[in-house]
Amino acid sequence: MRHLSFTTDYGLSDAFVAICHGVALRAAPGVRIIDVTHLVPLADVRRGASVLADAVPYLPAGTVHVAVVDPGVGTTRRAIAMETPDGYLVGPDNGLLLPAADALGGPIAAVELTDPAPARTFHGRDLFMPAAARLATGATLTSLGPPVAPGTLVRLPTEVTRSGPGWLEAEVRSVDRFGSLQLAATAADLDPLGSPVQVFPADAGQQPLLVVRGETFGDVPPGDLLVLADSTGRIALSVNQGSAAERLGVDAGTVIRLERSRGSGARA
Amino acid sequence: MRHLSFTTDYGLSDAFVAICHGVALRAAPGVRIIDVTHLVPLADVRRGASVLADAVPYLPAGTVHVAVVDPGVGTTRRAIAMETPDGYLVGPDNGLLLPAADALGGPIAAVELTDPAPARTFHGRDLFMPAAARLATGATLTSLGPPVAPGTLVRLPTEVTRSGPGWLEAEVRSVDRFGSLQLAATAADLDPLGSPVQVFPADAGQQPLLVVRGETFGDVPPGDLLVLADSTGRIALSVNQGSAAERLGVDAGTVIRLERSRGSGARA
Amino acid sequence: MRHLSFTTDYGLSDAFVAICHGVALRAAPGVRIIDVTHLVPLADVRRGASVLADAVPYLPAGTVHVAVVDPGVGTTRRAIAMETPDGYLVGPDNGLLLPAADALGGPIAAVELTDPAPARTFHGRDLFMPAAARLATGATLTSLGPPVAPGTLVRLPTEVTRSGPGWLEAEVRSVDRFGSLQLAATAADLDPLGSPVQVFPADAGQQPLLVVRGETFGDVPPGDLLVLADSTGRIALSVNQGSAAERLGVDAGTVIRLERSRGSGARA
Repeated sequence: MRHLSFTTDYGLSDAFVAICHGVALRAAPGVRIIDVTHLVPLADVRRGASVLADAVPYLPAGTVHVAVVDPGVGTTRRAIAMETPDGYLVGPDNGLLLPAADALGGPIAAVELTDPAPARTFHGRDLFMPAAARLATGATLTSLGPPVAPGTLVRLPTEVTRSGPGWLEAEVRSVDRFGSLQLAATAADLDPLGSPVQVFPADAGQQPLLVVRGETFGDVPPGDLLVLADSTGRIALSVNQGSAAERLGVDAGTVIRLERSRGSGARA
Repeated sequence: MRHLSFTTDYGLSDAFVAICHGVALRAAPGVRIIDVTHLVPLADVRRGASVLADAVPYLPAGTVHVAVVDPGVGTTRRAIAMETPDGYLVGPDNGLLLPAADALGGPIAAVELTDPAPARTFHGRDLFMPAAARLATGATLTSLGPPVAPGTLVRLPTEVTRSGPGWLEAEVRSVDRFGSLQLAATAADLDPLGSPVQVFPADAGQQPLLVVRGETFGDVPPGDLLVLADSTGRIALSVNQGSAAERLGVDAGTVIRLERSRGSGARA
Repeated sequence: MRHLSFTTDYGLSDAFVAICHGVALRAAPGVRIIDVTHLVPLADVRRGASVLADAVPYLPAGTVHVAVVDPGVGTTRRAIAMETPDGYLVGPDNGLLLPAADALGGPIAAVELTDPAPARTFHGRDLFMPAAARLATGATLTSLGPPVAPGTLVRLPTEVTRSGPGWLEAEVRSVDRFGSLQLAATAADLDPLGSPVQVFPADAGQQPLLVVRGETFGDVPPGDLLVLADSTGRIALSVNQGSAAERLGVDAGTVIRLERSRGSGARA
């Protein structure tokens, strides 16, 4: 028996999540469901995609991942299921699933879910969970619908990352509960900049901040900013026991510029 | 082994929910617990009843449903367990359980839980979960306490729905995370009104709005209101990628009036 | 197979909790995880300690309890695992675990977790969950690291409780979702004060309130304050269908004074 994971913007106050659990458990008794989060901001496909991609590499091998952040539910956007080297993904074809598929080794094959008469407003219940339960009980991907070429699946715009000698610019990929700003750039890109680094916040009129490179929050005094490699291997800006998002007044999607500062030492 | 479902206003910040899970797992090892929601607004029995009734038809057959929204805990209100054709319900006799019982085929039998000395402020832990765990491990309903005539169980006031030629009035039964207003009336009642429909918000002084009938949110442009049959078969007012509750400034319990508009076509 | 419990300040919006579930399920297939709460306020070790201590006595015997509220992650604070007569505890050595250990019979033995190269910002994933999964699959405590004398483990400051003839002063230990103020003092300390009791809020300039002793919220009219023995056996101040925390304007950590009032009768 496989595991299911479940990621949505359904919230935790309505019956939506439990209804989907029930549908899965009725169709695949004994399946175990891991809730990733149901607090993706409403219709925020990009945030749903990043949190799902963060989670999937750590979930049990072969898990069927169901994700629903789906402002186009019931319209002409396709409903899909995908196979990867390490599990399946099921959800809308709106960019939500591909970053997670990439994190699992890339899509090997995809199909369109073409249930003839689902309710048009609750595909989690009527289309995605039933398909996922079938995969969890051993159905093949191709039994779920006609094939779709993986290259035709909808991809979100690539996150901005640019770099040159002594500088890099990267989009804020996500902001976590601790207020840390995770940049789309990988931590290796940080090494040539040394420490401290000049950080240029979003507003062009703002003065750059001189920010120390650390390895964990406690490497700077409480309330101080630092830049570090986060637990996913990306660059993060954090405040020890505080919020970098509040300090810098930026949110996901903002492009941040980092520059080598004149006095900064090379990183050992 | 049966499943338990669990619905409360305990919130997610305290140990209450985990303590109840623990009590169930100690008494019924191996039981599986499905959390419906623990974010019912404090003491809002009506909301608890509607979210529970929404969930139960989709949960595994024979589930023991425990629900606790119980401003009268420890007073003279009865504590009850009920049997239905498709599972059990356990909780306070304050109207919380009967809509769900009806959704499961109606109460066949009920008993009063008369534990001689429960703590008087935490019946979820001391009375309801222990009784539910006994049912989950095969105890009969009648072993839990003296019988109660189902007709004497407390019922919430019936939700307002009225209709006549070319109009209907219905109470807002619930507001979901997406800001959709679910009316107590069934979608079939909408068909005679055609499309678009005139919607009279709560405030008598407000002008009626002309609202298109759709089948899913994306049938209207982002930001536009529509009226549709929701996933439970009831009438809902929604805004595509927005909140109908905010747009109309109404909340659960408000009565909304819908009227056939002069120019509206009959629905195919 | 043992159970794991999991208590953190990770929140419910990011992938942190699911990642830790995944790590545990990969290392200990079939383990069952009970989430206590993930909404401990950021870095609030004292609150984390009290909610964990509240939960553990009710969770299945032998559970491995993982808790992470860890502002010093990756610094010199120790990472530890502890054995008690009724289960294990795993987390940072910052005071978070000891109240729960005491509730399980006291620490019998402890070890330091000395993984050579964990990521320095996500010890829940890289250090605590892997250690807990090993305990859940039968590893001995001593296989996890070098022994630590339990007497050297970090303890939070003792909560304030003082009493004399006809009065007591006690710190507010926690505030729950219902707005009830739980004092650090046990309910037995309340008996000599009779009923009603004079309650002196935090602000010295405020007049004392005359508060009735009850056994459950409904013993007073909606909106009224009462003082009672709560479900943990401690003294609580509550408002029937309201919030004592709002009424008195106090929060966890505040010291409240209770005095016998002149006209109060002895408690039967």
